[in-house]
Amino acid sequence: MKFTDYSGPFTFASRFEEGADTNPEELVGAALAGCYSMFLSALISGEELSPKSINTNATVTLAKDDIGPNITHIKLDCSVVCEDLSQEKFNELAQTAKEKCPISRLYAGGTATIELNATLV
Amino acid sequence: MKFTDYSGPFTFASRFEEGADTNPEELVGAALAGCYSMFLSALISGEELSPKSINTNATVTLAKDDIGPNITHIKLDCSVVCEDLSQEKFNELAQTAKEKCPISRLYAGGTATIELNATLV
Repeated sequence: MKFTDYSGPFTFASRFEEGADTNPEELVGAALAGCYSMFLSALISGEELSPKSINTNATVTLAKDDIGPNITHIKLDCSVVCEDLSQEKFNELAQTAKEKCPISRLYAGGTATIELNATLV
Repeated sequence: MKFTDYSGPFTFASRFEEGADTNPEELVGAALAGCYSMFLSALISGEELSPKSINTNATVTLAKDDIGPNITHIKLDCSVVCEDLSQEKFNELAQTAKEKCPISRLYAGGTATIELNATLV
């Protein structure tokens, strides 16, 4: 499966200042948040439960080192509403999704640490 | 600097079928293509040259292994129009941008190999 269709404006202003368009950091954050939510949803469905909602936000930190700008940290804040899902099972699945979702695996070993804050509401 | 604003629809259909919305793979491809272009632009500007155009497309390959779906390959096709830039210097800068742009560094060490096909038009 190949994907080449996405296009959208981003500029130096939207990246390093306060411009309105998007930028690469927003895109990698959105990719991880979306992928994480989909993966967690699949895992919960695998327990024969139906999550009512899964919301995940990614906060991406861009810093600078000797080589140049780099992404050092991505914080995922995820909240899930799901009847009959125990806290223990939720913790297990939330962690598994972080380890196994394709976008987590793409970023693993790179410059960013990924922090997960998952809450069963 | 922190980024949390991007939002957009993506669904199972847009990811694994032929739906019209975006998906995480498109976003990571767009992030890399955009970041690579910006970084190469900065490097060329550092040579006191002004590129007339830099176009980069990313093709993202999603495959599946024992753990699940994963991104195995990202191909960058970049074409640059720039007067007075030698082929040799272009090759050097194109390679440097691949190694040093922040999104390349985020993906380095993950599941994907990044292939660069850069052309000075």
